[in-house]
Order: sequence, then structure tokens, then C-alpha cells
Amino acid sequence: MTKKQNTKADQLGITTRDEDFSKWYLDIIEKADLAEHSPVKGCMVIKPYGYAIWENIQKILDKKFKETGHENAYFPLLIPKSFLSKEASHVKGFAKECAVVTHYRLIDDPDGTGVIVDPESKLEEELIIRPTSETIIYDAYSRWVQSWRDLPILINQWANVVRWEMRTRLFLRTAEFLWQEGHTVHATEAGAEDETVKMLRVYEDFAQNYIAMPVIAGLKPEHDKFPGALRTYCIEAMMQDKKSLQAGTSHNLGQNFAKAFDIKFTDQEGKMQFAWQTSWGVSTRLIGGLIMTHSDDKGLVLPPKIAPIHVVIVPIYKTPQEQVAVEECVESIKQDLLGTDLSVKVDDRDNLSPGFKFNEWEKKGVPIRMEIGPKDLEKNQVVLVRRDTGDKSMVAMAGLVDVVKTQLGDIQESLMQRAIKFREENSHTAENFDQLVLVLNDQSGYVYGHWCGDSACEDKINKETSATIRCLPIDKKNEPGKCAVCGKDSEKIVIFAKAY
Amino acid sequence: MTKKQNTKADQLGITTRDEDFSKWYLDIIEKADLAEHSPVKGCMVIKPYGYAIWENIQKILDKKFKETGHENAYFPLLIPKSFLSKEASHVKGFAKECAVVTHYRLIDDPDGTGVIVDPESKLEEELIIRPTSETIIYDAYSRWVQSWRDLPILINQWANVVRWEMRTRLFLRTAEFLWQEGHTVHATEAGAEDETVKMLRVYEDFAQNYIAMPVIAGLKPEHDKFPGALRTYCIEAMMQDKKSLQAGTSHNLGQNFAKAFDIKFTDQEGKMQFAWQTSWGVSTRLIGGLIMTHSDDKGLVLPPKIAPIHVVIVPIYKTPQEQVAVEECVESIKQDLLGTDLSVKVDDRDNLSPGFKFNEWEKKGVPIRMEIGPKDLEKNQVVLVRRDTGDKSMVAMAGLVDVVKTQLGDIQESLMQRAIKFREENSHTAENFDQLVLVLNDQSGYVYGHWCGDSACEDKINKETSATIRCLPIDKKNEPGKCAVCGKDSEKIVIFAKAY
Repeated sequence: MTKKQNTKADQLGITTRDEDFSKWYLDIIEKADLAEHSPVKGCMVIKPYGYAIWENIQKILDKKFKETGHENAYFPLLIPKSFLSKEASHVKGFAKECAVVTHYRLIDDPDGTGVIVDPESKLEEELIIRPTSETIIYDAYSRWVQSWRDLPILINQWANVVRWEMRTRLFLRTAEFLWQEGHTVHATEAGAEDETVKMLRVYEDFAQNYIAMPVIAGLKPEHDKFPGALRTYCIEAMMQDKKSLQAGTSHNLGQNFAKAFDIKFTDQEGKMQFAWQTSWGVSTRLIGGLIMTHSDDKGLVLPPKIAPIHVVIVPIYKTPQEQVAVEECVESIKQDLLGTDLSVKVDDRDNLSPGFKFNEWEKKGVPIRMEIGPKDLEKNQVVLVRRDTGDKSMVAMAGLVDVVKTQLGDIQESLMQRAIKFREENSHTAENFDQLVLVLNDQSGYVYGHWCGDSACEDKINKETSATIRCLPIDKKNEPGKCAVCGKDSEKIVIFAKAY
Repeated sequence: MTKKQNTKADQLGITTRDEDFSKWYLDIIEKADLAEHSPVKGCMVIKPYGYAIWENIQKILDKKFKETGHENAYFPLLIPKSFLSKEASHVKGFAKECAVVTHYRLIDDPDGTGVIVDPESKLEEELIIRPTSETIIYDAYSRWVQSWRDLPILINQWANVVRWEMRTRLFLRTAEFLWQEGHTVHATEAGAEDETVKMLRVYEDFAQNYIAMPVIAGLKPEHDKFPGALRTYCIEAMMQDKKSLQAGTSHNLGQNFAKAFDIKFTDQEGKMQFAWQTSWGVSTRLIGGLIMTHSDDKGLVLPPKIAPIHVVIVPIYKTPQEQVAVEECVESIKQDLLGTDLSVKVDDRDNLSPGFKFNEWEKKGVPIRMEIGPKDLEKNQVVLVRRDTGDKSMVAMAGLVDVVKTQLGDIQESLMQRAIKFREENSHTAENFDQLVLVLNDQSGYVYGHWCGDSACEDKINKETSATIRCLPIDKKNEPGKCAVCGKDSEKIVIFAKAY
């Protein structure tokens, strides 16, 4: 960070990343107008610009889910308390952080000041607001699945869920959040495993090719898997503070829930079998990952494939005559861009200076700013400014749409390359405990090292560094070695890192 | 109903409309696989085929909302109890039917049998699951609105809401349902009224031109408006049992909520003003309306513009040679249809007879069935069967796509015309109390009559007939007359009808 940039950032009201990364993150959300805290502890309001990003995420993922054979459905928000207890590990994982509905009516407060809960309206069995929907969905599946002909069931749900988190952070960890949860049922163990990995790869593809956020696909250690799962896969992304963000998970549930919820089918030989299941999800947390991967001290930076607005046009003029000429040209360019599926915003507010507008759209991360003034009209050109690099170019109006499209492609690609470079520069290896502690404490980032599989080894490194094992990368060839913590024989390489 | 049809319907497992309309409605939902009851009292599971209809409704309406300048956002599911009390009439209307969250943690039951609510986790202030979001949204708006330049705010939310209904009915009245709720803020009274009527017209257009459900746009009587509104507009549709369904509402909230939540702005003259607001919504109830407008004793009937599948192709063959030839042809036709944005399903299940498949797709309301067998191949033709009329036609393969598109257009139009005809045939007028009672009790349907505006008159007719005043149609020219109940002078004509 140069001094000048710091000053600029100060003017924008954004803390720099170097100064305080956490504060910077919240400043970006505020200045880009993405979301805000609500009066309900831990719940957020997702504002229109932030929600437009979520809509783009939904649109792209929903298409991918349908292309891979899934349908959407909707299951109840409320889960009977007893359902949670049916799968033993599941209840341990989720019972701690539930919103519990105990009554169903309010009445006037006898003291005349408002309303109180009607004690007469107590529910016989309390209801839990879904923290995740395995139990309520698998209760339905137990009725739907009878024969091998009913399988596979490939269903996804877009929904809100509530987990009573004590320490919340906009997008990354909120009491209520939006997500999708896929829930599938298969006739064979191999069918479930294929699905689990297939959807992990869908997430990986989406993160990398749309959010431009490089991820490592991996397996969670045994002690960190989803409560009730056989195996949990995840994608992990490195943020600009070198901490890791778990950005999506895909679980092979084996037959655990099928046994708990009695999901059985008659196979082709007429024998009764328990079914095999998967579940997988990503959430509004992806928006947090998006922010922390690309944004800078001037504000949000959006990859074009996710950006609600691709190009913002700022008309520049002084006299009314100039205004007419400029606006006419702006309108014509806008129509050209709209005609090719680009999203364009013309900032024609008459009470703000161009400079103010430039800052505002930089804060909001619009990939390309287009400036058009009287001098540009004379020269039949426009000025394009890239949000990612700040590069300015004069571009002839003839062929403008193609240049804009090429620039958008470049921005998408260059954000991805920059993020990969950052991750590679901050990835290390460690052979023994001292190295591991040193690198994690001094340099942070990802540290690849062998791990014997004993959770005690993770506890030990966690105590010294606050890092955890993020995953066992599935695309990394494993060769026998020695556990970087205890020195015992190890088959697998894992990533140690601090994490969100 | 002829005897033969009854028998056919019996075989299908569908009660006829004549026999028991309510039972018929539930049978349609079950046989078309749209939704089912969940173990949580009053909550439903929307199954994939039912949810696909909702997705189509969402897609079309969302586009219309955006074309009229609205953006989507998301506000918290949970509302502090005290918020409900801020607007006096609002709390009266909604406090009675709320799901109340009182605790935030479960712990192991000391008796070892499951989990119990942790008494230590009692919330200081109870939270209500939103029955509608005026209060939580307007709390945010009070922070967002400062100057006339911040207005209008035009925001919509797609969300789930919970109202603790005692008597529920799939899609029509469920404890949890899905909907959209628009919430706008304007600088002037006229701005709010324009918006209220504009969105009512969007609903009217959608109901008529997509669901093919004719509606009457009207104003609710004073005593039946939304709690907290100045005026409530609605669209009312006549179902096949001649009862009316309120299918959407649009409220001019005046300044009631602005005053309760302190939503103020500095106007262009620098004066502080309270803002003017609207809210408007439609829900999964529309699917209930869709079913009861078009379906028949053989199953669901879907208007093509809302149907998840436009054409189902049933291949017919006996020998393996025939199968190869037929399937090749089916695949080629399928690709042609997909190429023109039609949604096509090929039913190639090998364990079911064509006759069984015909019944199944009739139950699911797919607008066109296409049959292709060896004889059709010889003649270069296919058989098309329309779901609405049962009409069968042989159509040459050359130009098939155009014929399919024309038939789909015809079906859409003809469903609308049939529904209009039904409504007109069941619309009457009444000049006095005896007529009103006679028509409502003997013929049911809509009865147009003058009403003086006194709610006592509605109570009186309601007692005799169980009918209510549905609305004051806004497109009907009002001429002075005499109240059909009490005979007093009246300015307005209203619709009396039994309703859902």
C-alpha cells in the first residue's frame, strides 16, 4: 500500500485491508450498499444491490442443477423437535443452535401497552426453524421411496435457514441465511458417491468460472464432517487475508439417515434395501467469499459474470447543448450494449459531479466505467476505465460493443489469475511441527503437510497457531510420508490454515 | 356429468366435481403430484411438479416487476414482537395467528430420550415468524429514507411467511406459504395510489393472460381492507363451484405505517414530510386458483403459458425393430420442439402401457399429448391430443412444430374463453333483499347489486347466505341506485358471493 492509496481510501470512508481487514470487509459491504444488520440480533437485510448478486448466483447454479437432472421442490420451514433426534450425530450437531417455536398466538397485554404471548397457545411439541432440512425432507422421502423405480430422487430446495449463531458477520455467518440444499436418494453406494462428487465439481466449476474464486476441492477430516454424514467434501478458497473460507460442501450420507428415517426400497431382485443419500449446499456466504477474494481499498470488485451491472455510463457535459448531444449518444450506445445481453446503467443524476459518480461506482465494483463527454463526441470515441486495474483507454465508437465484451472477458480472466497467483504465493509446505508452527504463525496462508489422521495432531497445531485442517485435497496425488505434527507414518497430504 | 364419465373418473381415483368439489380439489393435487400435507400441522410439501408451476409464476411475475422498475431484496424472517404493535390496526389483524420463537437452544433430555428446550435460552423479547413483512421492512425504510431524492423506493421480496391457520387447505390456506410482497415508498399520495393500481393491473394481466383465469379488479369494502391500509384493491376469480377466490391484493397504505415507523423525508422545499406507501402480494394460492378454474374430472388442466411441460410424447411400438424406428423419430421431433423454447417430455418408461401413460399425463394436465407409432411413421404423421377438449388430430410431420404452437395458443385462448363464459353464465343481478337471498342460495355465483356502504347490510346477507361482499369492481360504471339489502340510497355496485 502506498501512502497515496491510503489517503484515497480514507476519503472513501473505507478502512484499508492492511489497517484492519475485518473492518475493511464491513466497510466494503456498507459502501457498496450490499447488506446491513437488522434489529433482530444476527439477522441481516440483504439490500437490492447485494440481492442482485445473489440472484445471479441462483440463476447460474439453478441452471447447472437442472442440467445435471435435478428438480426444485419446497419443504416446511418448521421441523418437529422429535425429528432432530432421529439421527444421533445429527442432533448433536444442530440442537445447540436452533430457533424454537413454542407458541402460536399473541394477545393484548392486559396492561394495555402491546401484545404478549398467549400462554394458552403453547404447542404440544415444539417446532424448530430448520437449521438444515435433512430430517423434514427425509421424512417425506420415506413415503415417496418404495421401489428401485422411484430412484434416484434428485431434488434441490432454495430456502432460508436459521442457526442461532452468537458471533455473526454479514454474509459469512448470520443467524438467518439463504441457501440451496440438494437432497438425493440412490439405489447404490456408488450412485450416492458419484452424486456427491459430481455436485462438488459443479460447485468448483461455479466458484472458479463465475466468481473467479480459485478453490481446492477436498475431503474434510473425519471429525469435521457434517453431523450424520459418512463423508463430507468441501471447496476451500483463500481470502486476501490468507485465511481459508469453506465455500460449499457436499455430503455422502451413506445409509445413516435412511436407517433413521426408514427410507427403504424393493430392489430389482425383490429384496428390501436401505437407500443411499447425499446432501449438498452453498449459501449467501459465497458473497462474502466474492468480496474477500477480489475487492480492494477503493471498494468492491465484481467479476463480470456475477456483476448486476456490467457497464456504467457517466455522461459529462457543461452546457445544455452539450447535454443534449451527449445524452443522445449515450442512449444509442446503451441500446447497442443492451442488445447483446449486457447490463448497463446510465448515471444521469443531475445533482452529482462526474468525480463523485466515479467514486460511487468504483465502490460498487462495476467492471467497466464508460465516460462520454463533448470532446469524445468530436473524436467519435469513449473513455473506458477498468475497475480491476484502473486502466483507462480511449475506444472508437465503431466496434465499441466488441471492445467492451473483450474487456469484460479480460477482467473475468485476470481476476481469476490474480487470485490464483495470490494463493500460490501464499501456499507453503511443512515437513515437521516446528516448520508448521513457524509458517502458520509468520506467513499464514495454506500449508501443505502430511497428516496421520489423528485428531489429536490437529488439536495440537490448533493450540499453537489457531489453524485447522481445511481438507485433504482430492486432486493432489498422495504419497506416503510422515505426519507433520507427530512424525508417524502418513498416507495423506492435507492443508493446514486459519479459517473463517 | 354422464354416468360414463363418473365411472372413468372413479377408475382414475378422482372424485367428480359434482359429487364433492372439495374432495375433487384434493384428489387433483394428489393425482397430479403437486403437493402433500406434512407432519407439521398446516404446512405443506410442494412437490417438484407443483413447484415447477410456482417457478413459472415467479419467472413471469418477476420479469413484470422489474419491467415496472422494482428490485428484489431480502429482509429477516423474524420480527421482534414489539414491532407488530407499532401500527394499531396491523397488530389486531396479525397478532392472532403467529408462530412465536421464545428460545434459541435445545439440550439433551436428562432422561436420555431426546432433546428438550433449554430453559436458560429464553429470549428477552420473543420473535415472531413474519406473517407479512410491513413492520420489519419499514423499520429499515425509516433509516433509508431521508430526502425526496431517495424516493420512490420500489422493492419486492420473494419469501415464505407463516400464519397459524386452524383450518388449512393445500395451496389455498396453509400455515406456511410462499409469496412475493412488494413494499414501496413515495413522496406523494398520488404516487402511492398510482403504484397501488399499477400493481393491481399487473396482477390482473398476469392472472388473465398467463393463468387464463378471468378476474375482476375491485376495491375491498372498508371493513375488509388490509390491517393498517388506507385502501385495499383485489382481484377476484370465480372458481368452478361458483365461489370466489381472492387471488391477489394491492394496498395503498397511506401514511399509516410511515407515521408508526417514522418514515420521513425532506421535500424539495426543505420541509419534512411523512412518506406514502404501498404493499402488494400474490402467493402459492394462485396455484389453487389455477386448479379450480380449469381442471376437470380427469385431472389437472394447465394453461400452456404456465405448464412445466407443454408436450408429452408417448412412443408406441411392439417389436424391437419398431421401437428403434419410433424412438429415432421421437428424438428428432423432440429436438425440433426444444429448439423453439417448448418444454417436452418423452415418456419412454418400458414397464408401462401407452394407455396407463395417457391417463397419467392427463392427470398431470400436460396441454398436448403426442402419440407416435409404426403406422404413424408409415404415413409421416403423428397423433396430437388436446388435454382441454380431448380432441384428437392426425398431423403431418412436415410443419409439426407450427401446428403444435398453434394448438398451444388455441388451448390458452380457449381455456380463458371457457372460464369467462362460465363466469358470465353464473353472474346475476339483484335489486332487493329477497332477490339477493334467492339468487345466492339457489344459484350461487356472483350477484351484482347496489350497496349503501353499511357493514350491517353485509352482515345481514352473510347470515342468510354465507356470502360476503367481494369487491367494488373498479371497471364498472357506478350509477346511483338503492342498496339491495336495506333499500337506502347507494352510489356503488358491489359483487356479493360466497368465497374461499
